[in-house]
This record gives sequence, C-alpha cells and structure tokens, in this order.
Amino acid sequence: MEKIAIGFLGCGNIGCGVYKLLESYGAQIEANEGVAFDVRKILVRSLGKKRAYDVDERLLTDKPEDVLDDPDIAIVMEFMGGNEPASSYMIRALEHGKTVVTANKMALASRWDEIVAAAREHQSGLYYEASVCGAVPIIRAINDSLQANRITSVMGIINGTTNYILTRMSSEGAAYADVLADAQRLGLAEPDPTADVEGYDAAYKLSILSTLAFHKHVPVTSVYREGITNVTPLDVQCGKEFGLTLKLLAVAKEEDGVVQARVHPTFVPNAHPLASVNNAFNAVYVQGHACGEMMFYGRGAGDMPTASALVSDLIKAAKTKRHTMPAVAAGDCVMAEDWHCVHFIRMQAKDQPGVLSYVCGKFAEHGVSIASMVQKGEGEQSGSVQLIFLTHTASEKAVRTALGEMDSAMVIQGSVIRVEGKQ
Amino acid sequence: MEKIAIGFLGCGNIGCGVYKLLESYGAQIEANEGVAFDVRKILVRSLGKKRAYDVDERLLTDKPEDVLDDPDIAIVMEFMGGNEPASSYMIRALEHGKTVVTANKMALASRWDEIVAAAREHQSGLYYEASVCGAVPIIRAINDSLQANRITSVMGIINGTTNYILTRMSSEGAAYADVLADAQRLGLAEPDPTADVEGYDAAYKLSILSTLAFHKHVPVTSVYREGITNVTPLDVQCGKEFGLTLKLLAVAKEEDGVVQARVHPTFVPNAHPLASVNNAFNAVYVQGHACGEMMFYGRGAGDMPTASALVSDLIKAAKTKRHTMPAVAAGDCVMAEDWHCVHFIRMQAKDQPGVLSYVCGKFAEHGVSIASMVQKGEGEQSGSVQLIFLTHTASEKAVRTALGEMDSAMVIQGSVIRVEGKQ
Repeated sequence: MEKIAIGFLGCGNIGCGVYKLLESYGAQIEANEGVAFDVRKILVRSLGKKRAYDVDERLLTDKPEDVLDDPDIAIVMEFMGGNEPASSYMIRALEHGKTVVTANKMALASRWDEIVAAAREHQSGLYYEASVCGAVPIIRAINDSLQANRITSVMGIINGTTNYILTRMSSEGAAYADVLADAQRLGLAEPDPTADVEGYDAAYKLSILSTLAFHKHVPVTSVYREGITNVTPLDVQCGKEFGLTLKLLAVAKEEDGVVQARVHPTFVPNAHPLASVNNAFNAVYVQGHACGEMMFYGRGAGDMPTASALVSDLIKAAKTKRHTMPAVAAGDCVMAEDWHCVHFIRMQAKDQPGVLSYVCGKFAEHGVSIASMVQKGEGEQSGSVQLIFLTHTASEKAVRTALGEMDSAMVIQGSVIRVEGKQ
Repeated sequence: MEKIAIGFLGCGNIGCGVYKLLESYGAQIEANEGVAFDVRKILVRSLGKKRAYDVDERLLTDKPEDVLDDPDIAIVMEFMGGNEPASSYMIRALEHGKTVVTANKMALASRWDEIVAAAREHQSGLYYEASVCGAVPIIRAINDSLQANRITSVMGIINGTTNYILTRMSSEGAAYADVLADAQRLGLAEPDPTADVEGYDAAYKLSILSTLAFHKHVPVTSVYREGITNVTPLDVQCGKEFGLTLKLLAVAKEEDGVVQARVHPTFVPNAHPLASVNNAFNAVYVQGHACGEMMFYGRGAGDMPTASALVSDLIKAAKTKRHTMPAVAAGDCVMAEDWHCVHFIRMQAKDQPGVLSYVCGKFAEHGVSIASMVQKGEGEQSGSVQLIFLTHTASEKAVRTALGEMDSAMVIQGSVIRVEGKQ
C-alpha cells in the first residue's frame, strides 16, 4: 500500500507518543483502515537532545522548510505548543495545501481566524481533536454526532492539573499551595503553573469548544476567567456541607443568541456526573435540544492519550477526499454582560444584633433571593460568625452589587463561588 | 439546495421524533451542514392510526415497495424494530443501492452477516449509531475516534429499563417485582418486559459493540446472558456493605485473541464511573491501549435522543461520497470458555462448628482465593448464618465447581454475582 508522507513539527513527549503509536500499531491501522503513513521529517529545536522515545535520528532536522516546503509531505502534525512559531508554521503548511493535525489549543484559540481562513482558502485539511481533552473525542462528538442538535450548554472539567489539585484538596482538606507543590513534584503541574491554575489553558479550550457548539466564533479574549489560586480548604469544606463538590469548570451557554463563556471555580451537586470526575481526568457535559444530557469522560493529557487523538485525526484526514470546516458564522458573537446562576457566598460577620437582618436586607434590595443559609459561631470570644448563603438563581451583577454595598465594618467577605448543575 | 429524498420504514415514537426533528431543525442543519432532506414516503402498518406527531398524511403508505423500490429515494430510515420484516426490507433497500439508517439492534445483531454483506456487495451505506445507546455516539467513537487503539475492554450500562429498576432497588431497598410494576406504570418498561429484564436487548447491543471494538464478529448467540429477575434486595444491600453498586453490565474483553462477551448483574465499586450512572441513563466505559479509560454517557432511549443519533447518521450518510464498512474479520471469533473476575458469593450456612472451615476448604481446593468475608448471625433460634465472600480474581468455572461440590445439607447457596472494575 502506498504510504502517505507525513512530517512532524516538534518531538517532545507528544511527538514521541505519536511516533511510537505509528511504529507499534501502524500495521494494524493499515489492516483496519486501509491507510498507512511514513514519517519523513521531524523538526526539532536541538538535534542532539535525548528524547522520550528512540526516534530514527536520520529523520530529525532543525530547518522548518524541510517539513513545510517538502512537496511530498501531505500531512503536517504539530506538537510544538505555544503560539509562535507554531501558528506561522501551521499557516504556511496550510497555504501549501498540506493538511495540518494539531494538539495546540493556544495557537488555535488565539489565532482561530487566520488559521481557519488559511485552511478554507487553500482547501487544506485542519484537524484538532487533540487540542481539547486529549483522548476524549469531544470535537468529533460536537461536529459529527450532535449536528442535529441546538446545543444549549457545554460544561467541562477540561484541565487535568487543576482537577487533580481540587480533588486532593477535597478529599484531604489540604491547602492549595501544599497540593500544588506535590503536583509539581509528581510532574502533574508545570514549574510555572500559571497557564493551568489561572485558567488560561481551560479558556483556550472553551473558546474552541463553544465556537464549534454554537457555530459562532467565541474569542478566547471574551472568555471570563478566574483561576483556583484563591480557593481555600474552608470553602471546599463548607461546600461539602451543602452537598457540593468544587471543580474548575469551563461553562458555555447560549440563550436567545447571546453566549456566555466562563472558566471559574464552580460547585456542582455531588449527584451531578461531573462531581465524580476525579484526579487528572477530564469530562465534558453537553446539553442539546434533542439528545438531552451527555457526558464524555477520559484522559485529557499524557503522551499516549493525546497520541490516540492525533493519530485518529491523521487517519480521518487521510480517508477524507474533500476537507470541510464546521460552519461558524463570520464575526464574533454577542457575549453576555451578565449571567444568572446559583451563588455560594461565605462571609465573616460581626456577632452583634441586626447583622443578619442587614445582610439579608441588602440581598433583598437587589433581588437576590436566598435558598438556604447556615450561620456558624466562631466562639463567643471571637466576636464574629461565619455566614454561608446559597442563593436561588440570581444575576451575577446583582450579587456583586449587593456585596459591594455591604459595610465592611459589619461583614468581611470571604468567597463567592458559582454553582452549576443544580436542578 | 437540492433535497435528498428519504423514506421511512415505520412511524412510531422514533419515526415521529425524526420527522419532528427534520421539520423543526432542518433549516439549521442545511445552514450548518450543507445538506437538506425531503421525506417522500412513510411505510406504516395502519394508515388511519393516531400518531405521536402530526405527520403529513399524504406521505403515508402501507405498501413497502413505495419506499423500497422508488428509485428517487436515496436513503431509507428504518425504525420498525424487530427482526422481520425489518431485516428483509433493509437488505432489499441495500440491494437497490440505497443507504440504510437504522435504530434496529435486534435485526442488526441477529442478521449481521447478511445485512453487512448486502451493504458491502452493493456499496450501499449502512449507518446504525442509534442501534446502541440512543443519543450516545459510541459507535462513532469506536469507529472514528479510537481507530488508533487496540481496545481491550468495553463495559456498558446499555439498557435503560434495567438500570432504572436497579437504581430504585438500590436507593429504596425495594423488591424487583414492585419496581418493575412501577416502571411499567410509568412507561419505562414494556408490558412484556422480557427483552429488557432478561438481558436480550443488552446482548444485541453488546454483539454490535464488541464486533466493532475487536474487529471480529461476535455473534449474539455467543454472548453469555443472565437477566436481573433473580436479583434480591438482600444482594443489593450486602453489596453496599462492601462498597459495591449493582448494575446490569454488558462486558466484552479481548485477551490473546480470545473474546468474552457477557451480560449479567454485576457489582462495580462505588468509585467507578459506571456506579453513578443512574436511572434510565446509559454509559459505555471503554479501555484502549493508547487512550486509556474513557466513558460515554447519555440518554439511551426516548424519541428525541434516538432521533438525534438517526439524523446525525442521515447527515453523515448524505455527506459521504464513498461508504465504507468497518473492518471485521471473516468468520466468528474465538470465544472464551471461562473467564476470570472477582466474585461476590452469598450463602446461608448451618450455624454449627466446622461449616466455615468446610466452605473455605472447598474454595481452596479449587484455587479460589478469598479477599474478604463477612459472617452474619441470623439469631440463635434460626440455626443458620449468612456468609458473604468476596474472592480475589478467580476462574468462573472454578467458583462454580467449588460451589457445586458443597453439601447442600451444610450450605444453601444464595447468589453469585460477578464484580468488575475493581483495581
């Protein structure tokens, strides 16, 4: 069988995973799928570097043109990560009529318009299943399985590092910094964890997912983002008492043509399927007008799970005669300026008559209705009490305004955590 | 845009769901996907019958040839259910070069060879996402997203009726017959519930799933099948004490070229993702050598979820230039004659010295190693005790032989329930 020539951009863990998978399972793929691949060139930064897998050294090059300008190479697989030079390389490959298979959510989300335009203009294939949730075929599900649905919401645990940290904080009552340090020791968090813990990684992925789900471009700059660095064991514990589990959730909803897309620490009810997605696992919960609720669960990172998605895209690309891009309306979509959800609010208040009435009065004034409340004494000596409120569905703005107006001499505000998935 | 002429075989709840979805969402599908459909003919048994949706009566016919032999009709959608005449109609349509989209697991599993051969011989399209787990795109996942994986196991809750019954038995401690009666009242179980509660429905689906996962034909007649009619509240309760949840699981595994496929009541650890799949929801848990563990969760039945999958197939079929069938080796595969798993064994034994030693001796004799055991007195008057064993991974045959040899004057055996998903 004629082999399709492919080139790699990058050869870190993911690239080595793809190389290994093609080497070890390529014959079976050929037997099952009728396509075979030949890795021709691999662009690396440093030729002499020790790699995670024993890659044929004759394939290595440090000249991008060896991959991008070789007319024999039909498919370029990109796993360099980062915005540049990955984006420019992908665009150049697309302009040369090559198909691009990528795992790069940052480049894709940041330069969506340019990359997609290059693919469209040159009728080149562009495949990016691996860019969101590793092995989990959520892109394929939205594009190829839920086409008959108006998707109303997408909620996901789409960053493994933060889910690992929150899972341990929840099960052990541990502090954020301690678990982060552990995760770094175990290689589950980067030495600079910002992209994960501040929600940037999840925001890139949510931009891609919501753009496909709603058929409108949701730029990553329009995604509201809040990380997990301020989450305290006390919040986690108080949530438990209300039957809630804390997750860094990526939430996108469309209502009456207006889209909200946001990444923030979120409580979900323990009985919700997302609540039991633990450790480094990822899951995306989708609601469609015909299909109802669905969830897709699996390994969102790691060399072999990511390689599984990349090689799946490679096979799909090789079998596709005419590449198409999912329909996305031109221009950016209308983003919500406010949204409604249940809010968990924890505050420390002066232990004196009238405080509770004062706080409740402020909420009422702004139309924030309280579903349940717990007051916890902190000992008579302390002079303060903990107040924990769970609101009914309420406007985010109204909640913020009400809290902003409260006299700091009476209440010290602890946390406001949004709640999703409550029936 | 030119509309693709389609014909329906059947117009019950599912057919009405597809009709409604095409009518209400067809314009959006056309905008997003670039394909449009025109329902030309609908085969029904009785022309005058009242239907779930207001279908254009001029489309109805009681003559199969109006659908099957009309050269204008390119795609035939089958939702009659049952083996005949559905199978013959599908084969006839395929022989006429038409694409068939079906939700019929019984016909597909029972007559796999013939139906697939007809599609292959005439290069006709055959799409059946809706035949397994309603809206959940598990067929697409196996065929189009996990192609780079040697799939080692597929475990699913793939029958909503039995999952509803077991969920309620578990949460309420209720008896099987009572919950079944309730489910029948609510329309969640058929007046004759045999196909669901005896595991036939799950066996059809497992035959299809395992055939695709392992690329070998696993005939439905080779699927071991045991229903839930003998499950007692006592078993459910005892399992809970061991941290186990009872499910009707469809399990397929391949090891060294030998396949095991079985449907039976199964305990899964509470922390396993399948344990929290409740009520009428379906989920399939897949393990692949590259992707690791994955789970696909959603609504396995109902008119609109099933229509979501059928219309997705319809769109895919319409956009596909050359239909292909997944690679399945010729001939049936080698099925396991025995399998190994953890066993939960409950028995009532004479409350007399030496019984426990006798029972443990029998297990030891056959190489069945015990992981944990609980003995519960039933009151000194009763003269008997309950013994509950959890084995280490043990051969099914060895367990059965050991139990078969035990003297019924000493022990009355209650239940043997297999356990899957234990680490």
